[in-house]
Amino acid sequence: MEYSNKYLHLGEEIDPDDYVICKYKIATNLEMSNAAAAIAAEQSTGTWTGISTLNEEIFELYSGRVTAVEGDIATIAYPKEDFSLDIGGIPQVLSVISGNLFGLDALNGVRLEDVFFPKSMLNDFLGPRFGAEGLREVLKRPEKPLVGTIVKPKIGLSPKETANYIYEAGMGGLTNGKDDETLSNQKFCPIEDRVVAVAEAIDRVKDESGHIMVHAINVSTKGHEIVEVAERVQELGASEIMVDVITCGFAAVQALREDPSIKVPIHVHRTMHGAITKNKDMGVSMNVFAKLVRMCGGDALHIGTFGVGKMTGSTTEDIANQQACIGRDVPYKEVLPVCSGGMHPGLVEKLVEIAGTNIQIQAGGGVAGHPGGVRKGAMALSQAVDAAYEKIPASEYRKTHVELDQALSKWGSA
Amino acid sequence: MEYSNKYLHLGEEIDPDDYVICKYKIATNLEMSNAAAAIAAEQSTGTWTGISTLNEEIFELYSGRVTAVEGDIATIAYPKEDFSLDIGGIPQVLSVISGNLFGLDALNGVRLEDVFFPKSMLNDFLGPRFGAEGLREVLKRPEKPLVGTIVKPKIGLSPKETANYIYEAGMGGLTNGKDDETLSNQKFCPIEDRVVAVAEAIDRVKDESGHIMVHAINVSTKGHEIVEVAERVQELGASEIMVDVITCGFAAVQALREDPSIKVPIHVHRTMHGAITKNKDMGVSMNVFAKLVRMCGGDALHIGTFGVGKMTGSTTEDIANQQACIGRDVPYKEVLPVCSGGMHPGLVEKLVEIAGTNIQIQAGGGVAGHPGGVRKGAMALSQAVDAAYEKIPASEYRKTHVELDQALSKWGSA
Repeated sequence: MEYSNKYLHLGEEIDPDDYVICKYKIATNLEMSNAAAAIAAEQSTGTWTGISTLNEEIFELYSGRVTAVEGDIATIAYPKEDFSLDIGGIPQVLSVISGNLFGLDALNGVRLEDVFFPKSMLNDFLGPRFGAEGLREVLKRPEKPLVGTIVKPKIGLSPKETANYIYEAGMGGLTNGKDDETLSNQKFCPIEDRVVAVAEAIDRVKDESGHIMVHAINVSTKGHEIVEVAERVQELGASEIMVDVITCGFAAVQALREDPSIKVPIHVHRTMHGAITKNKDMGVSMNVFAKLVRMCGGDALHIGTFGVGKMTGSTTEDIANQQACIGRDVPYKEVLPVCSGGMHPGLVEKLVEIAGTNIQIQAGGGVAGHPGGVRKGAMALSQAVDAAYEKIPASEYRKTHVELDQALSKWGSA
Repeated sequence: MEYSNKYLHLGEEIDPDDYVICKYKIATNLEMSNAAAAIAAEQSTGTWTGISTLNEEIFELYSGRVTAVEGDIATIAYPKEDFSLDIGGIPQVLSVISGNLFGLDALNGVRLEDVFFPKSMLNDFLGPRFGAEGLREVLKRPEKPLVGTIVKPKIGLSPKETANYIYEAGMGGLTNGKDDETLSNQKFCPIEDRVVAVAEAIDRVKDESGHIMVHAINVSTKGHEIVEVAERVQELGASEIMVDVITCGFAAVQALREDPSIKVPIHVHRTMHGAITKNKDMGVSMNVFAKLVRMCGGDALHIGTFGVGKMTGSTTEDIANQQACIGRDVPYKEVLPVCSGGMHPGLVEKLVEIAGTNIQIQAGGGVAGHPGGVRKGAMALSQAVDAAYEKIPASEYRKTHVELDQALSKWGSA
C-alpha cells in the first residue's frame, strides 16, 4: 500500500453535497493517519505501489480524502463521481465504502461505523412507500406500538397449522404476523398454499372481530426471481412481504420497492447480519445497513431489542439504528423499527421506556410459549403493549389481565 | 434459548445424503454441547423458550442434530428437508447454516468453518460452465498458470486509456485482464464504451502477435438487472464477465450461469468478504464461500495469495479455499483459483511452489508499477510465471530477462 500523505487532507472543509463521507473505527500498529490513508487509497485510486498509469488529474478528481482522525475514528470522504448507481447500485457503493479494506494486512481491525450520502445520491432512491405511517394507516393503529409474532416453530408447520397460528394471534389482538427467516417453499409448507391459508385466516379474524392484521410472507430468494415471487404471493392474497436483506442483498429490497406491480409493505429481516455487525473491531455497523435499507425502501426493519432480548445488541447501538430508521436528515418516510428476538411480555415495559412507541414489538416464543397457547400469548403481549402505551406499570396491569399475569409468572420482567 | 439435550445426538451416525453437515468453531462460556445445541435449535425448530406449537413429529423430522463436539468445533447436521432451493435458493441456505446464530447472546463467537451438502442438493446446481479447463481452452494455454492484471488505477481511466492498458498488457504476454471491483459505469468510463474499446484492444493484440487474452468486465449490479447488463456487454464484445459475489450475492453468479444467453466465462471477485471471513472467531470461512461459488457456477474465483501478497490470508486457509475450488468430492468442473492482491513478479516463484500451476496469477500494481510501464510489467510477470513453470529459479531467469530483473530490483522477492 502506498501510504501516501497525498491522501491526507486533515482539517479540510469538504462539501457534503459532493462526497460520500464515511467514519471508520481502525485498529492498527501504524500511525492512525497512515492507516486511514491506506484505506482512502485502496478504496479509490491507490494500490500498494507507485504506478505509471495514475496521473495528477485522476488523483485530484477521484481520490478518497482523509479529512479527520480523532482517536480511533477516521473520516474519509469519497468523491461522488467514484460511485455508479444505475449500473452498480448498492453493490458498487459497498465495494467502495466497505470492500477490500477489510483484507488490508496493515489493519488489525476496521469497522465502518457510519456513512453520509450527498443529496444527489439520496435522490436516486425512493425510500419507503408505506413507512411507519403507512403501515399504521393500513392497520388503523395510529399511535400504539404495532404488536406482532413470528410463527413458531420456524419450520415444520403445515399451511393449515400456520394459518391457525395466525388466526389465534389475530384473535388475541396482534397486528402483525410473519414467516420466520428459514421458512420458504419447503414441501411441508408450500408458499402458495401458505399464502392462501394465511390470507383466509386474516379475513376470518376481521369478519369475526373487526380486527385488522397483516402477515409478512418470506419471499427471500434469488435476486433475479424475487419480484416474480412477490407478485405471485401478492396475487394470492399476501398482505405484506418479507425480505432478508443481508442474504438477498439491498438490491432485492430496492427492486421490490421500485417495481410498480408490488403494492404491499416490505418487512425487512436481517439474518446473518451478526457475522458482519457483531464484532466491534471488524465489519460494518447495523446503523449503516439501516440507512441503506431506508434508501432502498424497506417499510419496517429489524433493529434489535435495545438490550432486552435474546439477541446480542446494545442500547446505544440500537438507538443509532432507530435514528437511521426515523431521523429527519434524509428525504424519506420513516422506516418502522421492529424489535424482535427473545421478546416476551415481561420485556415490553422496559423496551417502550427506552425506544418509545413508534416501534413494532414482536415475539415468537414469547407468544407461542404462553402456558395458555398462542391466543393467550397474543393477548398477553397485546396487554403488555397497552399497559406500556397507557404508562400503567405491568405490575399493576397484570392484576386485572390474567393472560399478562400468566406470562409474567412464566418469564419474569426486565 | 432452549438448550435442550434433545438436540444432542453425539456419536450418532448420520447419512450424508440426508443432511447438510456444518462445522462451527464456537467460543462460549457454556458447556460446548449446550452451545452447539443452542445453534441447532435456533437454526431449525427451536426458540428460546418451550412452545405449545412444536410437536414431536415436527421435532423429529426437522430438527438440527449436534453429532459431534471436538475441542471448539461442533458438527451440526440439518435435515435436507429444512432447505428450499427453488424459491429460497442460496439466501435460504445461508439463513439456515449461517443466519441468526451469530446474534445468539449465549455465544461469544461462532464461525462456520465448513459445510458439506448431500448429493441431491448438489445436483440442483450446475457448477462451472468453463471452469479451469474451459478457460485454458479459450486461451490455448493448457498447463502454465494463467497470468493476468487488474487495470490500475482502480478508477479514473477513460475507456481509451483502459483499452490501451489492456493492449500493453496483452502485448507483454498476459492472458487475462479485468476491471477493478469499484469500476462500473461511472461517467469517466462508461461501461459500453469500455467494453468496445477493450474488445478492440484484445483483437489488435491477436492480430499483431497471435496472442489470445480475455478481459473480465465488471457487471456487478442489482440482482434483477445483472443478466441484462451481462447480455449487453457480451453483445458488445466482452470476452469474460466479473461478478462480486458478496455484494451481489451468490444468486447473481447462479443467474448468470443458468441463463442460456450468457456464453462467456464468469470471473468471481469477493470484495467485502474480509468483513465476514477475516475474524477467526466470528463469521464464515472463505472455504464455505468458495464451495458455494463452485455450486453456483463461477469459472474463476479469487481465493488469496497463500500468504504472499498485500491482503491478509494464511497459507492453510488458502489451501482449503483451493481445495474447495478443485477438490474431486463434488460433481462439478474445477473452478480456477485466482491469486491476486499485492502480487508482483518477485512473489511468483514462492506462490507456485505452494499453490502449483493450476492457478491464475494476477497483479495490478505489480504490473502497472513496473519502472518501464505496463508492457514491461506484463513481460516481467509473464517471465516470472514462465520461470516458475519451468522450475528455473527467478534469480537465474532474471539474468537473461531484463524486465524481470527490473521488477525484482524494485520489489524484491518472497
